[in-house]
Amino acid sequence: MHARTVFFVSDGTGITAETFGKAILAQFDIQFRFIRLPFIDTVDKAHQAVRQINHSGEIQGKRPIVFTTLVNTEVLEVIQKHCKGMLLDMFSTFVNPLEQELGVKSHHRVGRFSNVSRSREYAARIEAINYSLAHDDGQSNQDLADADVILVGVSRSGKTPTSLYLAMQYGIKAANYPLIPEDFERRQLPKALLPYRKKIFGLSIQPERLAEVRNERRPNSKYASLENCRYEVAEAEALMRREGIRWLSTTTKSIEEIATTILQEMQLERPAFS
Amino acid sequence: MHARTVFFVSDGTGITAETFGKAILAQFDIQFRFIRLPFIDTVDKAHQAVRQINHSGEIQGKRPIVFTTLVNTEVLEVIQKHCKGMLLDMFSTFVNPLEQELGVKSHHRVGRFSNVSRSREYAARIEAINYSLAHDDGQSNQDLADADVILVGVSRSGKTPTSLYLAMQYGIKAANYPLIPEDFERRQLPKALLPYRKKIFGLSIQPERLAEVRNERRPNSKYASLENCRYEVAEAEALMRREGIRWLSTTTKSIEEIATTILQEMQLERPAFS
Repeated sequence: MHARTVFFVSDGTGITAETFGKAILAQFDIQFRFIRLPFIDTVDKAHQAVRQINHSGEIQGKRPIVFTTLVNTEVLEVIQKHCKGMLLDMFSTFVNPLEQELGVKSHHRVGRFSNVSRSREYAARIEAINYSLAHDDGQSNQDLADADVILVGVSRSGKTPTSLYLAMQYGIKAANYPLIPEDFERRQLPKALLPYRKKIFGLSIQPERLAEVRNERRPNSKYASLENCRYEVAEAEALMRREGIRWLSTTTKSIEEIATTILQEMQLERPAFS
Repeated sequence: MHARTVFFVSDGTGITAETFGKAILAQFDIQFRFIRLPFIDTVDKAHQAVRQINHSGEIQGKRPIVFTTLVNTEVLEVIQKHCKGMLLDMFSTFVNPLEQELGVKSHHRVGRFSNVSRSREYAARIEAINYSLAHDDGQSNQDLADADVILVGVSRSGKTPTSLYLAMQYGIKAANYPLIPEDFERRQLPKALLPYRKKIFGLSIQPERLAEVRNERRPNSKYASLENCRYEVAEAEALMRREGIRWLSTTTKSIEEIATTILQEMQLERPAFS
Protein backbone atom coordinates (compact mmCIF):
# COMPACT_ATOMS: atom_id res chain seq x y z
CA MET A 1 0.00 0.00 0.00
CA HIS A 2 1.20 3.49 -0.84
CA ALA A 3 1.90 5.87 2.01
CA ARG A 4 -0.71 8.59 2.26
CA THR A 5 0.63 11.90 0.96
CA VAL A 6 0.53 14.95 3.19
CA PHE A 7 1.09 18.51 1.96
CA PHE A 8 1.99 21.52 4.04
CA VAL A 9 0.99 24.65 2.16
CA SER A 10 2.09 28.02 3.47
CA ASP A 11 2.68 31.55 2.25
CA GLY A 12 5.74 31.60 4.50
CA THR A 13 8.28 28.87 5.10
CA GLY A 14 5.70 26.29 6.15
CA ILE A 15 7.97 25.16 8.97
CA THR A 16 5.31 25.73 11.62
CA ALA A 17 2.70 23.86 9.60
CA GLU A 18 5.11 21.01 9.02
CA THR A 19 6.24 20.69 12.64
CA PHE A 20 2.70 20.79 13.90
CA GLY A 21 1.25 18.51 11.23
CA LYS A 22 3.94 15.88 11.73
CA ALA A 23 3.37 15.94 15.47
CA ILE A 24 -0.35 15.31 14.95
CA LEU A 25 0.22 12.56 12.39
CA ALA A 26 2.76 10.82 14.64
CA GLN A 27 -0.34 9.76 16.56
CA PHE A 28 -1.24 7.37 13.74
CA ASP A 29 0.46 4.07 12.90
CA ILE A 30 0.38 4.88 9.22
CA GLN A 31 3.17 5.69 6.82
CA PHE A 32 3.02 9.16 5.38
CA ARG A 33 4.90 10.92 2.63
CA PHE A 34 5.44 14.58 3.42
CA ILE A 35 5.70 17.41 0.91
CA ARG A 36 6.16 20.99 1.99
CA LEU A 37 5.09 23.73 -0.40
CA PRO A 38 6.51 26.98 0.99
CA PHE A 39 6.16 30.57 -0.22
CA ILE A 40 2.75 30.00 -1.89
CA ASP A 41 1.96 33.69 -1.85
CA THR A 42 0.28 34.42 -5.18
CA VAL A 43 -2.85 33.16 -6.91
CA ASP A 44 -0.65 31.68 -9.65
CA LYS A 45 1.42 29.69 -7.20
CA ALA A 46 -1.80 28.57 -5.51
CA HIS A 47 -3.05 27.11 -8.80
CA GLN A 48 0.28 25.32 -9.28
CA ALA A 49 0.05 23.89 -5.77
CA VAL A 50 -3.50 22.72 -6.44
CA ARG A 51 -2.39 20.96 -9.63
CA GLN A 52 0.41 19.17 -7.76
CA ILE A 53 -1.89 18.12 -4.92
CA ASN A 54 -4.70 16.92 -7.17
CA HIS A 55 -2.29 15.07 -9.44
CA SER A 56 -0.82 13.24 -6.47
CA GLY A 57 -4.31 12.27 -5.32
CA GLU A 58 -5.22 10.89 -8.74
CA ILE A 59 -2.08 8.77 -8.97
CA GLN A 60 -2.45 7.36 -5.50
CA GLY A 61 -6.21 6.88 -5.59
CA LYS A 62 -6.45 8.45 -2.15
CA ARG A 63 -7.02 12.06 -1.39
CA PRO A 64 -4.00 13.79 0.09
CA ILE A 65 -4.11 15.48 3.46
CA VAL A 66 -3.42 19.19 3.17
CA PHE A 67 -2.41 21.31 6.15
CA THR A 68 -2.51 24.99 5.30
CA THR A 69 -1.26 28.08 7.12
CA LEU A 70 -2.33 30.64 4.54
CA VAL A 71 -2.79 34.17 5.69
CA ASN A 72 -3.52 35.55 2.23
CA THR A 73 -7.27 35.25 1.67
CA GLU A 74 -7.10 35.12 -2.14
CA VAL A 75 -4.58 32.30 -2.08
CA LEU A 76 -6.62 30.39 0.48
CA GLU A 77 -9.75 30.75 -1.68
CA VAL A 78 -8.02 29.14 -4.65
CA ILE A 79 -7.05 26.18 -2.51
CA GLN A 80 -10.50 25.89 -0.93
CA LYS A 81 -12.24 26.04 -4.27
CA HIS A 82 -10.06 23.72 -6.35
CA CYS A 83 -8.09 21.41 -4.11
CA LYS A 84 -9.43 17.89 -3.88
CA GLY A 85 -7.40 16.98 -0.80
CA MET A 86 -8.63 16.92 2.78
CA LEU A 87 -8.09 20.50 3.93
CA LEU A 88 -7.00 21.24 7.48
CA ASP A 89 -6.86 25.01 7.71
CA MET A 90 -4.64 25.71 10.69
CA PHE A 91 -4.93 29.42 10.29
CA SER A 92 -8.67 30.22 10.08
CA THR A 93 -9.57 27.47 12.56
CA PHE A 94 -7.99 29.46 15.34
CA VAL A 95 -7.89 33.02 14.00
CA ASN A 96 -11.65 33.34 13.63
CA PRO A 97 -12.57 32.46 17.24
CA LEU A 98 -9.64 34.60 18.42
CA GLU A 99 -10.97 37.59 16.49
CA GLN A 100 -14.25 37.18 18.35
CA GLU A 101 -12.58 36.75 21.73
CA LEU A 102 -10.21 39.69 21.30
CA GLY A 103 -12.74 41.93 19.63
CA VAL A 104 -10.34 42.95 16.85
CA LYS A 105 -9.63 41.83 13.33
CA SER A 106 -6.36 40.12 12.49
CA HIS A 107 -3.95 41.65 9.97
CA HIS A 108 -3.97 38.85 7.47
CA ARG A 109 -0.45 40.03 6.84
CA VAL A 110 1.74 37.45 5.16
CA GLY A 111 5.19 36.80 6.54
CA ARG A 112 4.25 37.68 10.06
CA PHE A 113 3.01 34.14 10.37
CA SER A 114 6.23 32.23 10.37
CA ASN A 115 8.84 34.68 11.53
CA VAL A 116 9.95 38.14 12.32
CA SER A 117 13.22 38.79 10.58
CA ARG A 118 14.71 42.17 11.42
CA SER A 119 13.37 42.35 14.97
CA ARG A 120 15.20 42.73 18.24
CA GLU A 121 14.34 39.14 19.06
CA TYR A 122 15.98 38.01 15.86
CA ALA A 123 19.17 39.96 16.52
CA ALA A 124 19.29 38.43 20.00
CA ARG A 125 19.06 34.92 18.53
CA ILE A 126 21.97 35.55 16.18
CA GLU A 127 24.02 37.06 18.98
CA ALA A 128 23.22 34.08 21.22
CA ILE A 129 24.26 31.61 18.50
CA ASN A 130 27.60 33.37 18.12
CA TYR A 131 28.04 33.43 21.87
CA SER A 132 27.24 29.75 22.31
CA LEU A 133 29.57 28.78 19.48
CA ALA A 134 32.43 30.82 20.95
CA HIS A 135 31.79 29.24 24.37
CA ASP A 136 31.34 25.66 23.22
CA ASP A 137 33.28 22.96 25.06
CA GLY A 138 35.09 25.36 27.38
CA GLN A 139 36.75 27.12 24.43
CA SER A 140 36.68 30.51 26.10
CA ASN A 141 36.53 31.79 29.66
CA GLN A 142 35.95 35.32 28.45
CA ASP A 143 32.59 36.97 29.01
CA LEU A 144 31.25 34.09 31.09
CA ALA A 145 29.51 36.81 33.09
CA ASP A 146 27.28 37.32 30.03
CA ALA A 147 26.11 33.71 29.93
CA ASP A 148 22.47 33.02 30.76
CA VAL A 149 23.37 29.44 31.60
CA ILE A 150 26.55 27.35 31.72
CA LEU A 151 26.08 23.66 31.02
CA VAL A 152 28.55 21.19 32.49
CA GLY A 153 28.92 17.44 32.05
CA VAL A 154 31.23 14.71 30.79
CA SER A 155 32.18 14.61 27.12
CA ARG A 156 29.20 13.49 24.92
CA SER A 157 26.52 14.07 27.52
CA GLY A 158 24.60 16.39 25.19
CA LYS A 159 25.99 19.82 26.09
CA THR A 160 26.72 21.13 22.60
CA PRO A 161 23.40 20.39 20.86
CA THR A 162 21.51 21.68 23.90
CA SER A 163 23.52 24.93 24.02
CA LEU A 164 22.96 25.57 20.33
CA TYR A 165 19.27 24.77 20.58
CA LEU A 166 18.80 27.17 23.52
CA ALA A 167 20.55 29.88 21.53
CA MET A 168 18.77 29.28 18.23
CA GLN A 169 15.27 28.77 19.61
CA TYR A 170 15.26 31.17 22.57
CA GLY A 171 18.15 33.59 22.12
CA ILE A 172 19.70 32.26 25.32
CA LYS A 173 23.45 32.63 25.71
CA ALA A 174 24.46 29.12 26.72
CA ALA A 175 28.11 28.37 27.40
CA ASN A 176 29.18 24.79 27.98
CA TYR A 177 32.12 23.31 29.82
CA PRO A 178 33.33 19.73 29.93
CA LEU A 179 33.97 17.96 33.24
CA ILE A 180 37.20 16.03 32.77
CA PRO A 181 39.30 13.60 34.87
CA GLU A 182 41.47 16.49 36.03
CA ASP A 183 38.43 18.10 37.66
CA PHE A 184 37.56 14.81 39.35
CA GLU A 185 41.07 14.51 40.78
CA ARG A 186 40.99 18.08 42.05
CA ARG A 187 37.45 17.35 43.33
CA GLN A 188 36.45 20.81 42.15
CA LEU A 189 34.64 22.55 39.34
CA PRO A 190 36.85 24.13 36.67
CA LYS A 191 38.23 27.30 38.27
CA ALA A 192 36.84 29.64 35.63
CA LEU A 193 33.32 28.59 36.59
CA LEU A 194 33.54 29.20 40.34
CA PRO A 195 32.24 32.80 40.20
CA TYR A 196 29.19 31.69 38.19
CA ARG A 197 27.95 28.77 40.27
CA LYS A 198 24.34 29.96 40.13
CA LYS A 199 24.28 29.81 36.36
CA ILE A 200 25.55 26.25 36.15
CA PHE A 201 23.32 23.36 35.12
CA GLY A 202 24.57 19.79 34.77
CA LEU A 203 23.86 17.12 32.19
CA SER A 204 24.45 13.51 33.06
CA ILE A 205 23.85 10.27 31.15
CA GLN A 206 23.72 6.53 31.79
CA PRO A 207 27.24 5.04 31.45
CA GLU A 208 25.96 2.29 29.11
CA ARG A 209 24.46 4.84 26.73
CA LEU A 210 27.54 7.06 26.99
CA ALA A 211 29.79 4.12 26.03
CA GLU A 212 27.59 3.51 22.95
CA VAL A 213 27.80 7.14 21.86
CA ARG A 214 31.55 7.38 22.47
CA ASN A 215 32.21 4.09 20.67
CA GLU A 216 30.72 5.55 17.51
CA ARG A 217 33.37 8.27 17.66
CA ARG A 218 36.41 6.36 18.93
CA PRO A 219 35.76 2.64 18.76
CA ASN A 220 37.52 0.45 21.34
CA SER A 221 39.28 3.37 23.01
CA LYS A 222 39.79 3.70 26.73
CA TYR A 223 37.71 6.89 26.40
CA ALA A 224 34.73 4.86 25.17
CA SER A 225 35.12 1.85 27.46
CA LEU A 226 32.21 1.09 29.76
CA GLU A 227 34.57 1.06 32.71
CA ASN A 228 35.83 4.56 32.00
CA CYS A 229 32.32 5.86 31.27
CA ARG A 230 31.15 4.47 34.62
CA TYR A 231 34.04 6.18 36.36
CA GLU A 232 33.51 9.56 34.71
CA VAL A 233 29.75 9.61 35.21
CA ALA A 234 30.00 8.59 38.87
CA GLU A 235 32.66 11.24 39.52
CA ALA A 236 30.77 13.94 37.64
CA GLU A 237 27.56 13.22 39.52
CA ALA A 238 29.40 13.17 42.86
CA LEU A 239 31.03 16.48 42.00
CA MET A 240 27.74 18.10 41.03
CA ARG A 241 26.08 16.76 44.18
CA ARG A 242 28.87 18.17 46.36
CA GLU A 243 28.69 21.54 44.63
CA GLY A 244 24.91 21.73 44.85
CA ILE A 245 24.47 21.89 41.09
CA ARG A 246 21.14 20.88 39.60
CA TRP A 247 21.36 18.29 36.87
CA LEU A 248 19.26 15.97 34.75
CA SER A 249 19.91 12.75 32.91
CA THR A 250 19.81 13.13 29.13
CA THR A 251 19.73 9.38 28.45
CA THR A 252 16.15 9.13 27.16
CA LYS A 253 15.52 12.79 26.44
CA SER A 254 15.44 14.75 23.21
CA ILE A 255 17.24 18.08 22.83
CA GLU A 256 13.86 19.80 23.08
CA GLU A 257 13.00 18.05 26.35
CA ILE A 258 16.40 18.82 27.85
CA ALA A 259 16.13 22.47 26.82
CA THR A 260 12.60 22.81 28.18
CA THR A 261 13.61 21.33 31.53
CA ILE A 262 16.58 23.69 31.79
CA LEU A 263 14.38 26.71 30.99
CA GLN A 264 12.00 25.64 33.76
CA GLU A 265 14.62 24.83 36.37
CA MET A 266 16.70 27.92 35.74
CA GLN A 267 13.62 30.11 35.24
CA LEU A 268 15.04 31.39 32.00
CA GLU A 269 11.77 31.99 30.15
CA ARG A 270 11.56 35.64 29.24
CA PRO A 271 8.00 36.80 28.74
CA ALA A 272 9.24 40.22 27.66
CA PHE A 273 11.07 38.52 24.88
CA SER A 274 8.01 37.43 22.99
CA MET B 1 -4.11 48.00 29.96
CA HIS B 2 -2.64 44.68 30.90
CA ALA B 3 -1.41 42.39 28.15
CA ARG B 4 -3.69 39.42 27.62
CA THR B 5 -2.14 36.26 29.08
CA VAL B 6 -1.70 33.24 26.86
CA PHE B 7 -0.91 29.76 28.17
CA PHE B 8 0.52 26.84 26.21
CA VAL B 9 -0.35 23.63 27.99
CA SER B 10 1.24 20.40 26.81
CA ASP B 11 2.04 16.94 28.11
CA GLY B 12 5.32 17.21 26.19
CA THR B 13 7.62 20.19 25.86
CA GLY B 14 4.92 22.50 24.54
CA ILE B 15 7.34 23.86 21.96
CA THR B 16 5.05 23.05 19.04
CA ALA B 17 2.05 24.63 20.77
CA GLU B 18 4.10 27.71 21.59
CA THR B 19 5.56 28.16 18.11
CA PHE B 20 2.20 27.72 16.47
CA GLY B 21 0.26 29.81 18.97
CA LYS B 22 2.69 32.70 18.74
CA ALA B 23 2.52 32.62 14.96
CA ILE B 24 -1.28 32.85 15.07
CA LEU B 25 -1.26 35.63 17.67
CA ALA B 26 1.31 37.63 15.69
CA GLN B 27 -1.68 38.40 13.46
CA PHE B 28 -3.11 40.66 16.16
CA ASP B 29 -1.88 44.11 17.16
CA ILE B 30 -2.25 43.26 20.81
CA GLN B 31 0.34 42.74 23.51
CA PHE B 32 0.39 39.25 24.93
CA ARG B 33 2.15 37.69 27.87
CA PHE B 34 3.15 34.10 27.15
CA ILE B 35 3.44 31.31 29.70
CA ARG B 36 4.38 27.79 28.69
CA LEU B 37 3.33 24.94 30.97
CA PRO B 38 5.23 21.86 29.74
CA PHE B 39 5.13 18.24 30.95
CA ILE B 40 1.52 18.45 32.24
CA ASP B 41 1.13 14.69 32.13
CA THR B 42 -0.81 13.79 35.28
CA VAL B 43 -4.23 14.72 36.65
CA ASP B 44 -2.49 16.39 39.59
CA LYS B 45 -0.38 18.60 37.37
CA ALA B 46 -3.51 19.40 35.34
CA HIS B 47 -5.25 20.69 38.46
CA GLN B 48 -2.19 22.81 39.29
CA ALA B 49 -2.18 24.23 35.77
CA VAL B 50 -5.90 25.03 36.04
CA ARG B 51 -5.32 26.87 39.32
CA GLN B 52 -2.54 28.94 37.76
CA ILE B 53 -4.61 29.78 34.69
CA ASN B 54 -7.77 30.66 36.62
CA HIS B 55 -5.81 32.72 39.13
CA SER B 56 -4.23 34.73 36.31
CA GLY B 57 -7.67 35.32 34.80
CA GLU B 58 -9.08 36.58 38.10
CA ILE B 59 -6.22 39.01 38.65
CA GLN B 60 -6.37 40.40 35.14
CA GLY B 61 -10.14 40.49 34.84
CA LYS B 62 -9.85 38.92 31.39
CA ARG B 63 -9.97 35.27 30.61
CA PRO B 64 -6.63 33.88 29.46
CA ILE B 65 -6.20 32.22 26.09
CA VAL B 66 -5.17 28.60 26.49
CA PHE B 67 -3.61 26.63 23.64
CA THR B 68 -3.44 22.92 24.49
CA THR B 69 -1.70 20.00 22.84
CA LEU B 70 -2.76 17.35 25.31
CA VAL B 71 -2.73 13.78 24.12
CA ASN B 72 -3.66 12.31 27.49
CA THR B 73 -7.46 12.22 27.66
CA GLU B 74 -7.71 12.35 31.45
CA VAL B 75 -5.50 15.40 31.64
CA LEU B 76 -7.45 17.11 28.87
CA GLU B 77 -10.73 16.41 30.69
CA VAL B 78 -9.51 18.17 33.83
CA ILE B 79 -8.64 21.24 31.78
CA GLN B 80 -11.90 21.17 29.84
CA LYS B 81 -13.96 20.82 33.00
CA HIS B 82 -12.28 23.34 35.28
CA CYS B 83 -10.32 25.84 33.23
CA LYS B 84 -11.99 29.23 32.86
CA GLY B 85 -9.75 30.36 30.01
CA MET B 86 -10.62 30.32 26.31
CA LEU B 87 -9.58 26.82 25.24
CA LEU B 88 -8.04 26.23 21.83
CA ASP B 89 -7.49 22.48 21.63
CA MET B 90 -4.90 22.04 18.90
CA PHE B 91 -4.84 18.30 19.31
CA SER B 92 -8.47 17.13 19.12
CA THR B 93 -9.40 19.78 16.57
CA PHE B 94 -7.32 17.98 13.97
CA VAL B 95 -6.99 14.45 15.32
CA ASN B 96 -10.71 13.75 15.31
CA PRO B 97 -11.32 14.53 11.61
CA LEU B 98 -8.08 12.71 10.75
CA GLU B 99 -9.30 9.58 12.55
CA GLN B 100 -12.39 9.68 10.35
CA GLU B 101 -10.43 10.29 7.17
CA LEU B 102 -7.82 7.61 7.86
CA GLY B 103 -10.28 5.11 9.27
CA VAL B 104 -8.08 4.34 12.29
CA LYS B 105 -7.88 5.50 15.87
CA SER B 106 -4.90 7.56 17.03
CA HIS B 107 -2.65 6.23 19.80
CA HIS B 108 -3.21 9.01 22.26
CA ARG B 109 0.32 8.22 23.28
CA VAL B 110 2.05 11.00 25.17
CA GLY B 111 5.54 12.03 24.16
CA ARG B 112 5.07 11.09 20.55
CA PHE B 113 3.54 14.47 20.10
CA SER B 114 6.51 16.73 20.30
CA ASN B 115 9.48 14.56 19.50
CA VAL B 116 10.96 11.18 18.93
CA SER B 117 14.10 10.85 20.99
CA ARG B 118 15.98 7.64 20.33
CA SER B 119 15.06 7.34 16.66
CA ARG B 120 17.25 7.18 13.60
CA GLU B 121 16.12 10.67 12.67
CA TYR B 122 17.27 11.94 16.03
CA ALA B 123 20.69 10.32 15.73
CA ALA B 124 21.04 11.88 12.28
CA ARG B 125 20.30 15.33 13.70
CA ILE B 126 22.99 14.97 16.36
CA GLU B 127 25.47 13.71 13.79
CA ALA B 128 24.63 16.60 11.47
CA ILE B 129 25.10 19.15 14.26
CA ASN B 130 28.56 17.73 15.02
CA TYR B 131 29.39 17.72 11.33
CA SER B 132 28.27 21.30 10.78
CA LEU B 133 30.20 22.48 13.84
CA ALA B 134 33.38 20.76 12.69
CA HIS B 135 32.96 22.28 9.22
CA ASP B 136 32.02 25.78 10.30
CA ASP B 137 33.86 28.67 8.66
CA GLY B 138 36.14 26.46 6.56
CA GLN B 139 37.66 24.88 9.67
CA SER B 140 38.11 21.51 8.02
CA ASN B 141 38.46 20.24 4.47
CA GLN B 142 38.11 16.64 5.63
CA ASP B 143 35.01 14.68 4.74
CA LEU B 144 33.62 17.43 2.51
CA ALA B 145 32.37 14.55 0.36
CA ASP B 146 29.89 13.81 3.16
CA ALA B 147 28.37 17.29 3.11
CA ASP B 148 24.80 17.61 1.90
CA VAL B 149 25.41 21.26 1.14
CA ILE B 150 28.37 23.67 1.35
CA LEU B 151 27.46 27.29 1.97
CA VAL B 152 29.81 30.00 0.75
CA GLY B 153 29.75 33.76 1.22
CA VAL B 154 31.62 36.69 2.70
CA SER B 155 32.16 36.89 6.45
CA ARG B 156 28.87 37.68 8.30
CA SER B 157 26.55 36.86 5.42
CA GLY B 158 24.64 34.35 7.56
CA LYS B 159 26.46 31.08 6.84
CA THR B 160 26.94 29.84 10.40
CA PRO B 161 23.39 30.23 11.76
CA THR B 162 21.98 28.77 8.54
CA SER B 163 24.30 25.74 8.65
CA LEU B 164 23.42 25.03 12.27
CA TYR B 165 19.72 25.45 11.61
CA LEU B 166 19.80 23.04 8.66
CA ALA B 167 21.60 20.50 10.84
CA MET B 168 19.44 20.92 13.91
CA GLN B 169 16.06 21.06 12.18
CA TYR B 170 16.61 18.71 9.25
CA GLY B 171 19.64 16.56 10.02
CA ILE B 172 21.39 18.07 7.01
CA LYS B 173 25.18 18.09 7.02
CA ALA B 174 25.93 21.67 6.11
CA ALA B 175 29.54 22.78 5.80
CA ASN B 176 30.32 26.45 5.32
CA TYR B 177 33.26 28.24 3.80
CA PRO B 178 34.10 31.92 3.82
CA LEU B 179 34.91 33.75 0.58
CA ILE B 180 37.89 35.98 1.36
CA PRO B 181 39.92 38.62 -0.49
CA GLU B 182 42.48 35.96 -1.41
CA ASP B 183 39.82 34.06 -3.35
CA PHE B 184 38.81 37.25 -5.14
CA GLU B 185 42.41 37.91 -6.20
CA ARG B 186 42.83 34.37 -7.47
CA ARG B 187 39.40 34.75 -9.11
CA GLN B 188 38.61 31.21 -8.02
CA LEU B 189 36.69 29.28 -5.42
CA PRO B 190 38.75 27.92 -2.51
CA LYS B 191 40.60 24.90 -3.92
CA ALA B 192 39.18 22.41 -1.44
CA LEU B 193 35.71 23.11 -2.78
CA LEU B 194 36.36 22.55 -6.46
CA PRO B 195 35.43 18.83 -6.47
CA TYR B 196 32.08 19.62 -4.79
CA ARG B 197 30.80 22.41 -6.98
CA LYS B 198 27.33 20.87 -7.22
CA LYS B 199 26.84 21.00 -3.48
CA ILE B 200 27.73 24.67 -3.18
CA PHE B 201 25.13 27.30 -2.41
CA GLY B 202 25.97 30.99 -1.95
CA LEU B 203 24.74 33.58 0.53
CA SER B 204 25.04 37.25 -0.30
CA ILE B 205 23.94 40.38 1.51
CA GLN B 206 23.51 44.10 0.84
CA PRO B 207 26.79 45.93 1.53
CA GLU B 208 24.99 48.54 3.70
CA ARG B 209 23.52 45.83 5.94
CA LEU B 210 26.82 43.95 6.03
CA ALA B 211 28.65 47.08 7.19
CA GLU B 212 26.11 47.46 10.01
CA VAL B 213 26.54 43.86 11.15
CA ARG B 214 30.34 44.00 10.95
CA ASN B 215 30.47 47.33 12.79
CA GLU B 216 28.80 45.72 15.77
CA ARG B 217 31.70 43.28 15.94
CA ARG B 218 34.64 45.49 14.99
CA PRO B 219 33.64 49.13 15.06
CA ASN B 220 35.44 51.47 12.67
CA SER B 221 37.65 48.75 11.21
CA LYS B 222 38.57 48.49 7.56
CA TYR B 223 36.80 45.11 7.70
CA ALA B 224 33.52 46.82 8.58
CA SER B 225 33.84 49.88 6.33
CA LEU B 226 31.15 50.34 3.73
CA GLU B 227 33.79 50.63 1.03
CA ASN B 228 35.31 47.28 1.91
CA CYS B 229 31.89 45.62 2.28
CA ARG B 230 30.94 46.90 -1.19
CA TYR B 231 34.16 45.50 -2.61
CA GLU B 232 33.80 42.08 -1.00
CA VAL B 233 30.14 41.65 -1.90
CA ALA B 234 30.68 42.71 -5.52
CA GLU B 235 33.64 40.34 -5.87
CA ALA B 236 31.83 37.45 -4.18
CA GLU B 237 28.79 37.85 -6.40
CA ALA B 238 30.95 38.10 -9.52
CA LEU B 239 32.82 34.95 -8.48
CA MET B 240 29.61 33.02 -7.86
CA ARG B 241 28.17 34.19 -11.15
CA ARG B 242 31.31 33.08 -13.03
CA GLU B 243 31.28 29.70 -11.30
CA GLY B 244 27.58 29.13 -11.92
CA ILE B 245 26.75 28.93 -8.23
CA ARG B 246 23.19 29.59 -7.13
CA TRP B 247 22.86 32.17 -4.39
CA LEU B 248 20.35 34.27 -2.53
CA SER B 249 20.46 37.54 -0.65
CA THR B 250 20.01 37.13 3.10
CA THR B 251 19.48 40.85 3.75
CA THR B 252 15.78 40.74 4.65
CA LYS B 253 15.44 37.03 5.32
CA SER B 254 15.21 35.05 8.55
CA ILE B 255 17.29 31.93 9.13
CA GLU B 256 14.14 29.88 8.54
CA GLU B 257 13.47 31.54 5.19
CA ILE B 258 17.06 31.13 4.05
CA ALA B 259 17.05 27.45 5.06
CA THR B 260 13.73 26.78 3.34
CA THR B 261 14.93 28.37 0.12
CA ILE B 262 18.14 26.31 0.19
CA LEU B 263 16.19 23.08 0.76
CA GLN B 264 14.03 23.92 -2.25
CA GLU B 265 16.80 25.00 -4.57
CA MET B 266 19.11 22.13 -3.72
CA GLN B 267 16.23 19.64 -3.54
CA LEU B 268 17.42 18.52 -0.15
CA GLU B 269 14.06 17.58 1.33
CA ARG B 270 14.11 13.94 2.21
CA PRO B 271 10.65 12.41 2.37
CA ALA B 272 12.12 9.12 3.61
CA PHE B 273 13.45 11.02 6.54
CA SER B 274 10.10 11.79 8.07
